[in-house]
Amino acid sequence: MMHHFGRYVNNSLERPDAMNTLAGRAAENLAAVRRTVPLVHNITNFVVMNVTANALLAVGASPVMAHASEEVEEMAGLADALVLNIGTLSREWVSSMILAGRTSKARGKTVVFDPVGAGATRFRTETACRVLADAGVGIVRGNASEICALDEAARSAADPATPGAARPRGVDAIHATDAAVAAAERLAAGAGVAVAVTGPTDVVTDGRRRIRVAGGHPLMRRVTGTGCTASALIAAFAAVDPDPAAAAATGLAVFGLAGEIAGQGADGPGTFMIRLLDALHAVTPAQVRAGVRIEGG
Amino acid sequence: MMHHFGRYVNNSLERPDAMNTLAGRAAENLAAVRRTVPLVHNITNFVVMNVTANALLAVGASPVMAHASEEVEEMAGLADALVLNIGTLSREWVSSMILAGRTSKARGKTVVFDPVGAGATRFRTETACRVLADAGVGIVRGNASEICALDEAARSAADPATPGAARPRGVDAIHATDAAVAAAERLAAGAGVAVAVTGPTDVVTDGRRRIRVAGGHPLMRRVTGTGCTASALIAAFAAVDPDPAAAAATGLAVFGLAGEIAGQGADGPGTFMIRLLDALHAVTPAQVRAGVRIEGG
Amino acid sequence: MMHHFGRYVNNSLERPDAMNTLAGRAAENLAAVRRTVPLVHNITNFVVMNVTANALLAVGASPVMAHASEEVEEMAGLADALVLNIGTLSREWVSSMILAGRTSKARGKTVVFDPVGAGATRFRTETACRVLADAGVGIVRGNASEICALDEAARSAADPATPGAARPRGVDAIHATDAAVAAAERLAAGAGVAVAVTGPTDVVTDGRRRIRVAGGHPLMRRVTGTGCTASALIAAFAAVDPDPAAAAATGLAVFGLAGEIAGQGADGPGTFMIRLLDALHAVTPAQVRAGVRIEGG
Repeated sequence: MMHHFGRYVNNSLERPDAMNTLAGRAAENLAAVRRTVPLVHNITNFVVMNVTANALLAVGASPVMAHASEEVEEMAGLADALVLNIGTLSREWVSSMILAGRTSKARGKTVVFDPVGAGATRFRTETACRVLADAGVGIVRGNASEICALDEAARSAADPATPGAARPRGVDAIHATDAAVAAAERLAAGAGVAVAVTGPTDVVTDGRRRIRVAGGHPLMRRVTGTGCTASALIAAFAAVDPDPAAAAATGLAVFGLAGEIAGQGADGPGTFMIRLLDALHAVTPAQVRAGVRIEGG
Repeated sequence: MMHHFGRYVNNSLERPDAMNTLAGRAAENLAAVRRTVPLVHNITNFVVMNVTANALLAVGASPVMAHASEEVEEMAGLADALVLNIGTLSREWVSSMILAGRTSKARGKTVVFDPVGAGATRFRTETACRVLADAGVGIVRGNASEICALDEAARSAADPATPGAARPRGVDAIHATDAAVAAAERLAAGAGVAVAVTGPTDVVTDGRRRIRVAGGHPLMRRVTGTGCTASALIAAFAAVDPDPAAAAATGLAVFGLAGEIAGQGADGPGTFMIRLLDALHAVTPAQVRAGVRIEGG
Repeated sequence: MMHHFGRYVNNSLERPDAMNTLAGRAAENLAAVRRTVPLVHNITNFVVMNVTANALLAVGASPVMAHASEEVEEMAGLADALVLNIGTLSREWVSSMILAGRTSKARGKTVVFDPVGAGATRFRTETACRVLADAGVGIVRGNASEICALDEAARSAADPATPGAARPRGVDAIHATDAAVAAAERLAAGAGVAVAVTGPTDVVTDGRRRIRVAGGHPLMRRVTGTGCTASALIAAFAAVDPDPAAAAATGLAVFGLAGEIAGQGADGPGTFMIRLLDALHAVTPAQVRAGVRIEGG
């Protein structure tokens, strides 16, 4: 994919099309992350803690993991962004998530919520609703089924007569994607958050705009925690970009480009996983400006 | 190692020898895992959660990690197999293991138990006995000392006069292996489970049959969690093979072959660990049929 | 860096200079770790458990992770060294750290303490002080800010009139390093421990001696858990070397050399992390004797 930014050089008042705007913004955000090294506080799951921390370090941010109720408010008070991820949740951790989220929100920092497995068990769905309602969430990132489950549960909580109406059971993949985009837009508008639905193509919405992000590599689905890593990278980008939808879309675009780079010559999911960290570290703002595939907004 | 399956082509009624039967079954099980993508629920230790999830994804299965008492029964109710691993156990997790195990057992799904460190501390040994007695375990996988400790403790619980009689202290390695096979056969017969003792050569028994599996690579002992990964892969194979001993033996055989492939050209335990994920992803049923080293049954 | 050991060959009574003594000791300690395979008990954080275990296996030691209060004393009773790391602390784990530390101390085994994030939150600083006071710690390893925070908190606890006096806020890097060395020497003398401050150059002190260790690679700062890994390796070396400062310095020197080897040709932090495990496994005592950069003592 080629962009032709040259035509804007001589006329800075000419508004570039949205795709180029977001590609440029992705490049600027990446540069800003590396310049400012934002501290990203993660209350996340045991499976991905290591790879998430490494991805944040690789891209240029600074990770911290802390979950004890005695310290999460203080830690959130130091951080530039917060990630809440319920992948291996337990009751005490959820309380810490609420405490940390409220602190971040009060300080004007962005809270990224990853509702891992929402819809799979009642405990996860209810916890996801509670975090969404009480933890100052600014951005939600999930896959299609998680976003549909969260939308349905949120609407069901608001109006007990509606549950199950739009549940995408047994539908084909295209329908599922469409359903997820509709769910994301409802969820975004209802909760006042940006929502990112990730999959073969990612969709980001804040209820008004719809941004599509392509990229990545099929091996991403064969490595655990790539979704969780996406959420963490979004938090790093949100630390330098006050627009939640733009932060989410540009973070996903850079991650997708890194995935494409990592996939070149990878022998399998093991080497891909390692090359992905290398690519997050090596990718330059210029490569991002020229190479990300992002449109809309 | 070469197999000559050609001689069975013209006479499907001729019973192939057991080794070839199991090699073919390993190939079929691998293909079935990739075709059906079984969901494997893991309640496992913090050290290996990431690598275990990645190994399951690499081989073609779908992992989920969840331990909260509020959701383990529901999650086990969705899964095609369950892994219980006490590597970093604590009291609350053991309760969740029992709940999840009983659910799986009631649904006819196989529970694989990895008694990490049984024999090292009283708490581990007692916990291992409790999980074995109460969690619907169908397959136990451990190293020689874990299996000996579990056998001894199980017999001691049944007859308090017998403890310590067969404890393999200070014996040489060959004696230890023989002792472990005897312990595995007693444990299998007594508890009505299949038992896999892994080591330089693996032995699987259900109390009636004895299957030996060779393969692997010396660097496996220099990477943490290879035993735990073996247990997780056995669970994936048990999701597609109703015979616990055959599931264990074929899962170990595929893992051993992947280890052999990964070891070719590995520079050390780091690259070996990564290449092992690549090999689990790349190995084909045809390679398995021709290359696994499995006999008995 | 070249050493010229030849000149000592003909006169074993001639005392080699301190640098060469420690290089030789590093080589001997590495050989002793591989020969005796010390069991290192880790009560550590979720982020680094896997990489720490792999680093210990790679260098030739045997790791065990266990944190349950029901078993930590028994496990510490089996181990040759203990690591306490508060990276993702919670109240119950701290109790287990105290229990395990006291057991190790009573058995004459070395307890290595990694006060991750001391100074960042009140809970961490207080916990770090409590572990230092109550858990039989023999060696503390931290970065400059952690060591300064721990020194300040320890002095503040001893004399409430002194807090804040020497806090290195807003000082330049050289000043910070100097302040950290001074803090390390006070902490070592006051608590009767060896203290290792790691950074671009590491400094180890037991309050009397000051040893400097160079080595490593800039990519170490882009991989999570390298500090925690250093602490774990120090514990392995302390299992074979009764002098805490020498154990810390030689462990850090071997780790630094492995980092240099790993950095040669690494494409980024992902491949570096993997090559570091390979290098810990491959590095020989002869390479250590010739290549470590360690002086003082």
